[in-house]
Amino acid sequence: MSTLIDLERLSLNQMTTKQWNVREAIEGCARAGVPAIGLWREKVAEFGLQASARLVRETGISVSSLCRGGWFPAASAEARQQRLEDNFRAVEEAAELGTDVLVLVCGPAPDRDIAAGRAMVAGALEQLLPYAAQHGVRLGIEPLHPMFAADRSVITMLDEALRLAQRFASPSLGVIIDVYHVWWDPDIYQRIAEARGSIFGFHVSDWLVPTPDMLNGRGMMGDGAIEIRRLRQAVDLAGYHGPIEVEIFNNDLWQLPGDQLVKLMCERFLEHV
Amino acid sequence: MSTLIDLERLSLNQMTTKQWNVREAIEGCARAGVPAIGLWREKVAEFGLQASARLVRETGISVSSLCRGGWFPAASAEARQQRLEDNFRAVEEAAELGTDVLVLVCGPAPDRDIAAGRAMVAGALEQLLPYAAQHGVRLGIEPLHPMFAADRSVITMLDEALRLAQRFASPSLGVIIDVYHVWWDPDIYQRIAEARGSIFGFHVSDWLVPTPDMLNGRGMMGDGAIEIRRLRQAVDLAGYHGPIEVEIFNNDLWQLPGDQLVKLMCERFLEHV
Repeated sequence: MSTLIDLERLSLNQMTTKQWNVREAIEGCARAGVPAIGLWREKVAEFGLQASARLVRETGISVSSLCRGGWFPAASAEARQQRLEDNFRAVEEAAELGTDVLVLVCGPAPDRDIAAGRAMVAGALEQLLPYAAQHGVRLGIEPLHPMFAADRSVITMLDEALRLAQRFASPSLGVIIDVYHVWWDPDIYQRIAEARGSIFGFHVSDWLVPTPDMLNGRGMMGDGAIEIRRLRQAVDLAGYHGPIEVEIFNNDLWQLPGDQLVKLMCERFLEHV
Repeated sequence: MSTLIDLERLSLNQMTTKQWNVREAIEGCARAGVPAIGLWREKVAEFGLQASARLVRETGISVSSLCRGGWFPAASAEARQQRLEDNFRAVEEAAELGTDVLVLVCGPAPDRDIAAGRAMVAGALEQLLPYAAQHGVRLGIEPLHPMFAADRSVITMLDEALRLAQRFASPSLGVIIDVYHVWWDPDIYQRIAEARGSIFGFHVSDWLVPTPDMLNGRGMMGDGAIEIRRLRQAVDLAGYHGPIEVEIFNNDLWQLPGDQLVKLMCERFLEHV
């Protein structure tokens, strides 16, 4: 566990620079000395999967993860099967892009029965996991903040994500820890320690007060309430030494020129992560 | 545990009808056959404490709780003392109004150190509790949704509130369960069962998708994602048979004529709680 961090561990999650396409983001990383990027499927689809993969290889930027698979629960068996097929495609895309991590945002329940929604997630994982393993892709369950429980993910706490992953006891299934989603958890440091060996990714941003927008109101590190460094050190101590993605959905930051935003991100990363 | 509910258990939390003052709210309850009201300190202060207490006695409407004490953490010892003094006043007001429940919203941490904020809450409870007991007032810790962890309450989960209450092992310290704050908790039914004997209040509203406003975007029962009846039955089963407050902060509902809103609330209470 080091107190300070260097840029070697930094990865730009592509949604932080939503104003950029895949080429702009990868080239922006190269210019700024950011060694890795977390790509998003819709951005990759826009730019082209093969073109994205080629650009990654040419620039030597490494892909820390692909966002996102998941969104498993649905009202009918047929709809759930479609979701699953889409996740098979996501696994293939991750492999093609040269990353071994697919981030899973598990999705909301189709109705008020959140327990049934959670069971659908487990059922889908059972079918997705062998396919992912076969492609050398690890699945990272990302617990989302409870304010997204009704519209984005029935899996809300690190503890719950860990219990879910442990049911399958597979080296290809683990968790993604994003400080924005878990910082408030009264047992978070204990949970992070328990996640040893299962942490496939670590994301940072900050919690603004007031939060300007529930979805797109995350803050730049240092601008909010989260003890980011303490959480990063806990994740280090739990044995995770991989890339740290900066993932900030923020309407204001998306108005900035991308290079300026990346420069600010690098400074704040060194200062607060 | 009954499947259906009747209006005998209904209480209007006064903030649901923010458009009404104390007199209007109490008289509105009397007109609609709502037997109880949850009062708010600022509304009571506006109308006058003695006048409010007199009106309650005259109409025979019972006061299910006073909202709210709490807001304990602060940066300096002096500021924390002021907060504590304010809570002594809240206890006195509750006693004067003839309710034995003071709802505690514990407050945010003064800086990024949420653990220190939580310790300040425990420290304040230690001093407040004897004073409350002496006045025949029970303190109900209300865990707030984690989206309020940075600006309203460092106590976010029922489990955490229970552990905090249990440290003092006092019949005058328990919890308030509000479905809006806890519905997403993956262990909520187990936690409610564990809360047996410590449940001092139960609040209902609904979670709208999308949520129109983080603070004032709660929904009328039946309009959202929460399994309200299942939660109410769990609370019944855990031995709580007291009043159920409808507490809805909603900008749109505050535009309605109060009587119309109360009528809708009664219908939805019977249908969904």
